[in-house]
Amino acid sequence: MESGAAAAQDIVRILYAHTGKAHIVGITGSPGSGKSSLVNELAKAFRVDGRRVGIVAVDPSSPFTGGAILGDRVRMRDLSGDEGIFVRSMASRGSLGGLARSTMAVVKVLDAAGYDVILVETVGAGQAEVDIATSAHTTIVLEAPGMGDDVQSIKAGILEIADILVVNKADQPGANRTVKSLEMMLHLAMPPAIDDPAHRDAGHRDWVARGETAGRSDGWGVSVLQTVATTGTGVIELAAAVDRHREYLLATGGWTARERARSRSEIERLLRERFIDEMNARVPAEERAALISAVVERRMDPYAAADRLYSGLNFL
Amino acid sequence: MESGAAAAQDIVRILYAHTGKAHIVGITGSPGSGKSSLVNELAKAFRVDGRRVGIVAVDPSSPFTGGAILGDRVRMRDLSGDEGIFVRSMASRGSLGGLARSTMAVVKVLDAAGYDVILVETVGAGQAEVDIATSAHTTIVLEAPGMGDDVQSIKAGILEIADILVVNKADQPGANRTVKSLEMMLHLAMPPAIDDPAHRDAGHRDWVARGETAGRSDGWGVSVLQTVATTGTGVIELAAAVDRHREYLLATGGWTARERARSRSEIERLLRERFIDEMNARVPAEERAALISAVVERRMDPYAAADRLYSGLNFL
Repeated sequence: MESGAAAAQDIVRILYAHTGKAHIVGITGSPGSGKSSLVNELAKAFRVDGRRVGIVAVDPSSPFTGGAILGDRVRMRDLSGDEGIFVRSMASRGSLGGLARSTMAVVKVLDAAGYDVILVETVGAGQAEVDIATSAHTTIVLEAPGMGDDVQSIKAGILEIADILVVNKADQPGANRTVKSLEMMLHLAMPPAIDDPAHRDAGHRDWVARGETAGRSDGWGVSVLQTVATTGTGVIELAAAVDRHREYLLATGGWTARERARSRSEIERLLRERFIDEMNARVPAEERAALISAVVERRMDPYAAADRLYSGLNFL
Repeated sequence: MESGAAAAQDIVRILYAHTGKAHIVGITGSPGSGKSSLVNELAKAFRVDGRRVGIVAVDPSSPFTGGAILGDRVRMRDLSGDEGIFVRSMASRGSLGGLARSTMAVVKVLDAAGYDVILVETVGAGQAEVDIATSAHTTIVLEAPGMGDDVQSIKAGILEIADILVVNKADQPGANRTVKSLEMMLHLAMPPAIDDPAHRDAGHRDWVARGETAGRSDGWGVSVLQTVATTGTGVIELAAAVDRHREYLLATGGWTARERARSRSEIERLLRERFIDEMNARVPAEERAALISAVVERRMDPYAAADRLYSGLNFL
């Protein structure tokens, strides 16, 4: 699934009907926030009532350390060989978009395999994280004391993606200040929904109605929890909040809204890929290269080049 | 240009022939790295020999503070009304992709208006930053002491995008350690080129030959510089390194390679937008919504839904 090979597509076609049962939980946080330890503890908390837990750890930061394999070993030891927990670490091979794609494929396999909760762990809050969050039912954003204490350091998109905010390492100095800052931020922000027209850039083209893009501001009250992953403090409460969010989504239609948003973005990606295949089949490589040259040399503007390529596609 | 209105397109069509002269320099770094101060000092350094400098500060983190306008005022005061410097701060209106797009449009206007150096300042190292870096000739990645000291905290993509690494606040404790860590990272990493086949995900479709995607590993030796923006220490040296990188690119063909990569990604975006317009015109909204429902309810897999939509486009 991770290689993106053609066989992966066949597998998804077959497995797809068996997906849709797992609760997909995204956990994002900066390096140093104690994310991995917290994810491990959270997995153990879900194991208490016998649920099977999948962990997909996405680490785009280490293309060269072989960190993925090492990470799996360290974590498996920590989780002491519990067969109800499956861990897979994924490192970037360059393209963050590709990583988001293969992460979602792996999540589907775990879902079809009957894992009840799938924890998808990502670093930072870049576009790849936003994409992964779009595909999760519940998104947890992790901070450590001293991080995110001033407005300036609020990460891009954090308010749009967080369903639950957690200050980990809550036994360290400054934890209260971080909690207060985050609470103030939540209070001040009242983030606009993603499907609020004013919140979208006018240049953005979309192929479905506004309502298909699920926003996060669906009435759920985002709260700030405190945990100490190393001692397990607060982890039961966090697991309970995750379960509450699931119940909330199911009761309010939010679950389906997020499933729609995910399906929509997946179909959109597939269409984009076909379109590019079509163009490659119809417009010779030399012609494409010549158009790029014309744009680089300012003999043609990019719009004119796009016009030319598009007209070569011969739509009926 | 920022609104993404249709008029923006007409403006780019007209201006485009006058662009291509400016040296576009991306500066990225986490909040707290002293980025804005360093960018201001760097602008002053370029002013010494009379060059005109544009600053485009991209801040996706403050959709709600009105930070853009406030930021412009604070910075303009710092730059003491020098008419050879133009500053424009841009805040996110939700979509990071949209922000990257309008940033590039504003850069074109400044380029056409005759600014010699355009400094594009971005936060973090998410996908939007990677996109912006792709469109810069030279990318500076900023760190502060204590940041990035262990392998784990190396940011996604940092090695792919950096042409020059800078440790700002170099008078603070820990600066030497940060410099050493970054140098070790550079030494260890030998980052693969973006156009290295092994480095691309197999599932990624592309419409031009491999060579069109300019990598960063084009023979330039990335170095680690130290600055103290508040006193101006090291800023002259940084400006000199930026100029050296420009000369290097011009001498080795790297300049054109980056222009090609930028033109390519711009044409690709325009084509994507047309394709979506085409689909919206040809496939009724109800049909699109019904397909999403079928996928959500697992009656159809996403590939089958994409097949159906695509066949509705009636290619010749």
